[in-house]
Formats: sequence, structure tokens, C-alpha cells
Amino acid sequence: MITVDEARALLFELAAPLPAEEVPLAEAAGRVLARTVTARRDQPPFAASSMDGYALASAEVELHAMFKLIGEAAAGHGFAGRVGPGQAVRIFTGAPVPEGADFVVIQEDVSRSGDLITIASDPGTKTNVRPAGGDFRAGDTVSAPRRLRPADIALLAAMNIGRVPVVRKPVVALISTGDELVMPGNEPGPDQIIASNTFGLKAMLEDLGAEARILPIARDSAASLTTAFGLARGADLVVTIGGASVGDHDLVGQVAGELGMERAFYKVLMRPGKPLMAGRLNGSAMVGLPGNPVSAMVCGRIFLAPMLRAMLGLGAEAPRLEQAPLDDSLAANGPREHYMRAQIGTDGRITVAADQDSALLSVLSQASALVRRPPDDPARSAGEIVDYLTI
Amino acid sequence: MITVDEARALLFELAAPLPAEEVPLAEAAGRVLARTVTARRDQPPFAASSMDGYALASAEVELHAMFKLIGEAAAGHGFAGRVGPGQAVRIFTGAPVPEGADFVVIQEDVSRSGDLITIASDPGTKTNVRPAGGDFRAGDTVSAPRRLRPADIALLAAMNIGRVPVVRKPVVALISTGDELVMPGNEPGPDQIIASNTFGLKAMLEDLGAEARILPIARDSAASLTTAFGLARGADLVVTIGGASVGDHDLVGQVAGELGMERAFYKVLMRPGKPLMAGRLNGSAMVGLPGNPVSAMVCGRIFLAPMLRAMLGLGAEAPRLEQAPLDDSLAANGPREHYMRAQIGTDGRITVAADQDSALLSVLSQASALVRRPPDDPARSAGEIVDYLTI
Repeated sequence: MITVDEARALLFELAAPLPAEEVPLAEAAGRVLARTVTARRDQPPFAASSMDGYALASAEVELHAMFKLIGEAAAGHGFAGRVGPGQAVRIFTGAPVPEGADFVVIQEDVSRSGDLITIASDPGTKTNVRPAGGDFRAGDTVSAPRRLRPADIALLAAMNIGRVPVVRKPVVALISTGDELVMPGNEPGPDQIIASNTFGLKAMLEDLGAEARILPIARDSAASLTTAFGLARGADLVVTIGGASVGDHDLVGQVAGELGMERAFYKVLMRPGKPLMAGRLNGSAMVGLPGNPVSAMVCGRIFLAPMLRAMLGLGAEAPRLEQAPLDDSLAANGPREHYMRAQIGTDGRITVAADQDSALLSVLSQASALVRRPPDDPARSAGEIVDYLTI
Repeated sequence: MITVDEARALLFELAAPLPAEEVPLAEAAGRVLARTVTARRDQPPFAASSMDGYALASAEVELHAMFKLIGEAAAGHGFAGRVGPGQAVRIFTGAPVPEGADFVVIQEDVSRSGDLITIASDPGTKTNVRPAGGDFRAGDTVSAPRRLRPADIALLAAMNIGRVPVVRKPVVALISTGDELVMPGNEPGPDQIIASNTFGLKAMLEDLGAEARILPIARDSAASLTTAFGLARGADLVVTIGGASVGDHDLVGQVAGELGMERAFYKVLMRPGKPLMAGRLNGSAMVGLPGNPVSAMVCGRIFLAPMLRAMLGLGAEAPRLEQAPLDDSLAANGPREHYMRAQIGTDGRITVAADQDSALLSVLSQASALVRRPPDDPARSAGEIVDYLTI
């Protein structure tokens, strides 16, 4: 068996970065910028007033000085002329500062009578002028790769990037396998349960930027699995859930092999999730997850999430671990890397759930973290610092 | 002028919780559960094997004991008969444990010859049986309100909740105002700039669970603003950006007033974002944000995000503040609560950006936090702990 890190390294070999596509700016939030983009203009494109007031020459600013108003500059409607000596232009926030002026006296510091103004209070030294290009200049860039946050979207808008080159969303086909499964909303037979893994994984993977497709449940027959793999063709990543164990009824590896899968590995030194399988099938990356709900979701976080990041061009890296003190002691770990469901309290301490059975979705739903125990990690006392992943 | 907390309290009065709607489970991720839902079945619905092996009576488990195989139980296909003394049933992971059996000897501990098996290694005391209802029981609940995470979706699936009652998404109409604005992708005139606030806010608000609609830019005329408010009718929240200052050309408050807005407040003791306005118009909550890009985005985080949480039934609370040590000293704050763009370093220290001009989107895009300075906060030294919000 290989380690978690070795398995992830092999998975990254299956996860090539995807090509770019262009989307309208209004749909670019959360997507990964695929190419460095360049501002098409200065921002502001002209020296602009940051206040409502009067634009004039800074050399003439003096308490009690008088000026003749020769016009008005509003946002979107500049003053076409030039401000000469003894002259001022009424100006509003965002308006271009007219030629000849380089200072805005705020309206609160001015007394006005008809078209004459007097500086009535000390206007200080702040010019209230935003210089052209003060935010960014034509040619300034936003570098790829970068997951676009709301402030990035606003910046790209200001740069006049109406269409944005982003990495295509990884398409993930999710196949749950097993005669015991029915879809939610259906009535299960007495020996059946509801398919839950594909729904949980779809939510997780779409959060990370994938487009996840839930395929029909594959039954425990070679013919049904072959049909499912056929429906998955063209996906960037094909994920099967269940049927990756060792029993007589575990067909996924066998059928995938007959369909030409080049296997990368099978089984990982990990709890939960030992019977993980991966390879390449019909040009897609393929990962076979174990069927226990918690195993499937934990493997999603530990393996599929980093694969998606790699496909999105964000680099091939293990998930970032954080550290917190234990709320209670922990027994020694066995030979497999163990990911334990846990909760982070408001005091910052981490409480590991008592029951780590990999079938308990109720425990996973209450968890906010997975504590990572290295293989053969010794017993730990309350207060000791452990590594964890947020979930 | 009122404080930030006073303003937020008045905004919460405008933000009534929205009604529920039902969505298919596959579309419920990230939505807020509107009503407590109840499991329709036990999970597992029967005692189930957690391993591949042989099901028999625990009372008969003994090294070298022999059993006759009388059938097979697979996932989805239980064994219909009863396991009697000296009998065993071949069983696979997930299969119902047959009547008469309460122990599964894993296949690695058994030697088999035809339809006879012998326990060849000590099987220990672990039964490898998951009891019926061990994860949850019919009648167990998932409590509302709760923003549904991927593990919750998996849990709801297992509970056979095919359609989920969730709080309707708040519909937000975004109106930017000003003759100086053109939409991204268009060619601005010499005195014009690109509308960026609506795009940044749409990304932010949709992240929080809203459905945000960018309306046409309202020009600086009463007629144009009246048209825009007409287009916004029916939205839960109408947000204008710009035109909320005090110049001759600031029409938003005037036009909204003529259309019947009941004003809740105007102006907040805050930097950036002083000229904030709010009220109720045509049955919608209405918030007028300042037009500077950073002011608009900061007010979005400080005011609109908590309003959306309240509308989604998640409670009326200020955004949660976190704490970190300053990387460098800070000058004393003035009389207004100040939200300063900052970055959290890998060392956990927080660096406040040198230029806090509220027009600089390039600075905001690089920021990961807003440091909150209370009114009249004294100068702070490097290493002192400050409050911040993540952005």
C-alpha cells in the first residue's frame, strides 16, 4: 500500500490543467483567471475631484481669496475651458478637474454670492484631487492564476475587462454503484438504502469550482457498470463510489480494467478510505472511492479537492493544514494515516468525535474539521497541538 | 450621525426573514434550511455488515469452529432464511445481517472448503455489524435554520429528503447611478469611467446566497432614477450606488423621497461610507451606498451581508470579528469607526495598507481583511491586537 502523499502525487499526474474559456464578467466570480489580464485604461482616466467644491489653482489658495465662477464640472460632464487666474469652476465628486486647476476647495470652506466665491475657512493642504492613474494605469495587470473574489471582479470591471479568460470548469461524472441504492425521493426496498454520496460530493465539488453530474446508479453487474462508464465519457474526472473493496461483488476495478483503465494505484494507507483506486480511462482521470459515506466525503476532501485545484491551474499541493490544541486526549494511531471527524469550539480547542465509524453521516454533518493523525502517531494528551483540515 | 451599530440595528428592522420554498436536494447546497426536517427511516434500516465475511451467531464464535454455508447476503439482496446453529451465511459489506446471526467473521479469518468454513484465526470481539438506526433513526431531525454544507446534503439524502424546504433567495436589485458611468465592454467617453461597483457587489451578495440583478445605469436625472426604481420593484432589497452625497447633483435621496421612501437614516459615523442612506420603498428595503468603489464594497460587507443573513433567517447579528496582532504601528483614529484594508500574512500578523483612499480598487483587491478601528481609537503599536473582518 502507498501513503496518502504518494497517492496524491499519482493523482496529480492524472490531473492536467484545463484550457481557458471566456465568460462575461458578471459570471466570472469564483472562477480561476486563466491568463494575466491588462488594464485597458488609467483609473481614474483623468485627475478627478474626490469632493464637492470649487476647482482652482493651488497657487491662489489663501484664506479670504475671491474667485469668479466660470462654469461647472460634474461627473461625466467636464468643464471644457481652462481655469485662469482669479477663476474657479464649481465641481462635484468624480468630475474631471479642469485644465489650469489642481486644487478643490470643499464647499463647506467657501461662501458664495452669485458667481463669486470667497474662501471662508482654511482649506488646508489636501488637494482633494485624485491623480490620473492613481488606482491603476493602462498596462497594469491582474496576474493568473487567481480565484476571482468580489473585489477582483470590481477591479476587472474598472479595467474594462468585459469578458474574462477563466479556466474551464472541470466536469466530474459521479457514479454510485450498488444494487442496494435508490435515489432520494424514491421508496427503497427492505434491503435498500438511499444514495447519499453522489449528492454530498456534488455539493463539495461544485463549491470548489467543478461542474458535477450525477449519473444513474450503476447496478452490481458488468453490463450496468459498462453503461455507466459509457455515460461518463468526456468528463475530465470520473468518480465511482462503492465497489472498490475486495468482495466477490466488487466489480468496479474489474470492469474498468476490461474497458482499458490504466491503473495508477489501488489501496492507500489511510483511515477512512483504504480501498481507494485511481487510473486513466478513456482519456479521463478516474478515481474509485469507497462506498461508506464518510469515507467517500473524506476522500473527496483529501484527494478530489486537490485534483480539482490542479485542474484549475492553482497548483498541485496537499490541502493546507491548520493547527489547534486538543480538547481531550487521543489514543495512539495505527499504521494508517487517520482523518478523524472533529469540531472546533469557540475557545479554539478541537474535540474529536467519539465514534469514528465511517458510516456515520450524522457525525460528519456535525464536524467542522478533520484531525490528521500521521501513521503510528503516539497517544496525545489534552492541550497538545494537532494538525487539522477544515471541512 | 448615528454609529455603525445603530445603523445596522435600523437596517435589521428593514430585513424581514423571507418565506420558504422547496428545491430538489441536488440544488439545496449552500441554501438555508427553512424548516426542521425529519428522517423518514432508520439508517441503516437493518443491522448491516461492515465487512466482507461470514455471518453467524456470536455465541458460536470460537477458533477452529466449523460452519455450513446456507446462503449469501449481498448489499441490496439479503438472505431470506434464518441462520441456525452450526450455520453461516456468506455476507458482503452493506448487506443485511440475516436473522439468527449477530456477528460477521471477516473473510481473512476463515478458511473455506466448498460449503464448509472454519474459523482459522482469532476473530476478536468486534462484531462487524452496524446496528439498525446506528447513524440516525426515523424521527431524528436536522434543525433549521442551517446553511446546508456538503455533509448535510449527504445526510439529507440518506434521510430520503428528496425535496428540501429552504429560505427563498433574497432578490437584490443593484442600481448604479451617474452620467459618468458606462458598462464594462463599452467605450467610455473622455469624462467617463466603467461601472464596477454593481459587478463587485453582485459577486459578493451571490456568494452570501442572494440573487443579484444588475439594472441599467441610472443617469443623473429624476426621470432616469424613477425608471430605475420602477425596474427594481418586487426586489427584497434595492441598492443604489452613488448619488448619496450632498452635492447639487445628488438626486437619489430626493427622487426616492418623492417616490414615497420612508427614510430610516442618512449618514453613518464611519470611514469609508459616511453618506449611507436607508429606508423602505414600495415594500422593499432600500439602501443607498456611496459611489466610491471601496466605500461601496466595504458597506456591502458591513451592512448588506448582515441584512442578507437576517433575511435568510440566520439571525440579526454584526459580522463576526477576529483578532490578530499588528505588523506595524497605526496612527490614532478620528471620530468615525474606520474599516482599513489590510492583509493577513502567513505569520498571522496583519498589515494595514498604506493608502486607504476609498477609490483604490487595486488596494482592495489585494486585501484579505478589514481592520476595524473604533471611534477615537488611540494610536496602536506593532504587536498590539486589533479586530478585523475577513473579506
